[in-house]
Amino acid sequence: MRAGPSQEEIRRYNLGTLLRHVHLGGPTSRAELTSRMGLNRSTIMALTADLAAAGLVREELPRETGRAGRPSLVVRPESARIYVLAFDVGVDRLVAARVGLGGVILDRRESVRQRGTFDLAEVISTLAGFARQMVRKTRPDTVCVGAAAAFCGAVRESDGTVHFSPNLVGPIAELPFGEELSRKLAMGLPVAVGNDANLGALAEHTRGVAPGCRNLIYLHADVGIGGGIIAGGHLLGGHEGYFGEVGHMIVNPGGRPCGCGSRGCLEAEVGERALIDHAGMYGRVGREAVRTLVEAADRGDIAARDSVHRAGDWLGIGVANLVNIFNPEVVVFGGTLRELYLGSAAQVRTQINTSSLPAARANLRLRTTALGDDVTLVGAAELAFTQMLADPLEMLARVSP
Amino acid sequence: MRAGPSQEEIRRYNLGTLLRHVHLGGPTSRAELTSRMGLNRSTIMALTADLAAAGLVREELPRETGRAGRPSLVVRPESARIYVLAFDVGVDRLVAARVGLGGVILDRRESVRQRGTFDLAEVISTLAGFARQMVRKTRPDTVCVGAAAAFCGAVRESDGTVHFSPNLVGPIAELPFGEELSRKLAMGLPVAVGNDANLGALAEHTRGVAPGCRNLIYLHADVGIGGGIIAGGHLLGGHEGYFGEVGHMIVNPGGRPCGCGSRGCLEAEVGERALIDHAGMYGRVGREAVRTLVEAADRGDIAARDSVHRAGDWLGIGVANLVNIFNPEVVVFGGTLRELYLGSAAQVRTQINTSSLPAARANLRLRTTALGDDVTLVGAAELAFTQMLADPLEMLARVSP
Repeated sequence: MRAGPSQEEIRRYNLGTLLRHVHLGGPTSRAELTSRMGLNRSTIMALTADLAAAGLVREELPRETGRAGRPSLVVRPESARIYVLAFDVGVDRLVAARVGLGGVILDRRESVRQRGTFDLAEVISTLAGFARQMVRKTRPDTVCVGAAAAFCGAVRESDGTVHFSPNLVGPIAELPFGEELSRKLAMGLPVAVGNDANLGALAEHTRGVAPGCRNLIYLHADVGIGGGIIAGGHLLGGHEGYFGEVGHMIVNPGGRPCGCGSRGCLEAEVGERALIDHAGMYGRVGREAVRTLVEAADRGDIAARDSVHRAGDWLGIGVANLVNIFNPEVVVFGGTLRELYLGSAAQVRTQINTSSLPAARANLRLRTTALGDDVTLVGAAELAFTQMLADPLEMLARVSP
Repeated sequence: MRAGPSQEEIRRYNLGTLLRHVHLGGPTSRAELTSRMGLNRSTIMALTADLAAAGLVREELPRETGRAGRPSLVVRPESARIYVLAFDVGVDRLVAARVGLGGVILDRRESVRQRGTFDLAEVISTLAGFARQMVRKTRPDTVCVGAAAAFCGAVRESDGTVHFSPNLVGPIAELPFGEELSRKLAMGLPVAVGNDANLGALAEHTRGVAPGCRNLIYLHADVGIGGGIIAGGHLLGGHEGYFGEVGHMIVNPGGRPCGCGSRGCLEAEVGERALIDHAGMYGRVGREAVRTLVEAADRGDIAARDSVHRAGDWLGIGVANLVNIFNPEVVVFGGTLRELYLGSAAQVRTQINTSSLPAARANLRLRTTALGDDVTLVGAAELAFTQMLADPLEMLARVSP
């Protein structure tokens, strides 16, 4: 237990907090910042001046306020100037984007990936190539302040190594993904790496269906199923950062075999393969196949409907367990779980009502992601902004030309 | 997002942190405090002087150091003078204790409770009576700085109301337990109330088998099963404080009916009733019955052994799920789960090895509580000290005669 912060640490914290307000909330008046941060007007003015001098924000007169008197200046993030690089490595696709302060996607590249193969050098070369194309197009005064990637696997936070990614890489992996991508980018920036579902939770918590919600679970399906958990306002990380492998929670002991070696995991019962096998659509794969299946169920196709309802029952049991364990305010479904939930909401809700404690589910809301297929990419961008928001001026000094 | 702390808030934080060091670590030299808190010697000296002037610590020469030169003074908590009242409401017993700063149990009272009945007024009267007996025996210069209770039920943190306690009170409850006990004590102190398993986790994290461990799960069985979870160094609380009802995680869909209305919950498969029923010991109840059963299994009684091994299998699946979800460093078994684990460690470990991800269990340790039957009481005492440790001088000013 260390002592409290020094004056200099507090100034850094306050600069970061002010910047975070405009990054997450958009243009904000000085008066509003004064009240939200609990500081006096002159301190807010001094902090804003420092951030403006560094080119991180600018101050301008608000549009029509409708009120009499001198309007409070509005602090606006310099979204076109300050940006991060965000990457998303999914089973079926690779995405790179340039995301401006304030969360604006300024530029974006995507390519389809072939399943069943994974060549680290090729993946990194594609992503770094996308980044170079995008950076080349920027104005000379723009500054890249961070880089991060979402990866569909278990990630060791300390060094961005992908430790385990059965659906992408195979049963064993130890990929120095963050390190290699950083080297290939050659921009002098580390690349932070996060599990896709964890970053989906971060995205929903910052910009999605439940901004600021303190207890949120995000469940994501690609081929596998993962979960990210915000508890007490913080993204949970676990001992080594392998937190939230809720896809391997056993919901049906002795059930379908799972890629992890066990049986009856949530992923084995609810994932893409289970859905497609039970509907008799052997050989089809991918997000589009799941969408087709759920649409067929909606139209009344019996095999499709049975498969969707069956998966909904197991998903409901899995969610009920998480509700009993975490007592969340919101559970958000993303990736192909978005489609599955929309096709089986009745089954999911019935199982939750049967199997979770009334007190734990009393204020529960179930939602689908509002960020579409970019939810994990948006989370990666937020991860990339983390260091910048912790100490804006220091970070800027480090990356400025 | 508020601004950083003021100078006065930092001073309070530093006083609290220094006091927490000696509360948890026992007598500590000024030199050690200087290095642990990252402050300079004169600041540590000033903080210690303030705490000593308030009668919270005293400074003394250390016993033999074996080193040459002037020894650093040792800061020692005033355990005999500063204390809290801690209570434990279990299914079978009521306990009250007077616990000194530093965690010393100074005095203790216990009574056996009759199962199947719960009279709030009577429980409160018993606990308050114990407290009065103990307080009456104290010296005039002692000061009670807090009070808290562990309760075997779901507790709403904000006001200490017991919301749900099926095994103690029946299916529905809304007991203003903290408020009523505070009124009956008439000491001008609020009584904080926590779920027994959550407080068990707090106890293990502060004084038990894994002090300071950042990711720990404590599993507790009385009649029911509960879990307390420390993630990233913090006790998780959930939206309304009903966090960690892991006893109602479904491990065996369609299995034994549970008191919560569902089937196949961990509690239904592993709890006291399942153990005793499967061994054919109908009619026996309580911690002693479970101990007798596990001893019989150890001696080779076949029915007892089958029941213990069966429960160990389900416990292993439950723990595997928690390991996949939380990636903890330590899982601690307390209450009657201590006995059950000792009798079925092979089954528990086998299930964990079969059903959890290698990465999530790589550094996992399984332990039984080192705090015996008092684990929840010790947790209640730590909860009672919380406010005092957040702002020592303010709290002392409020409670001093």
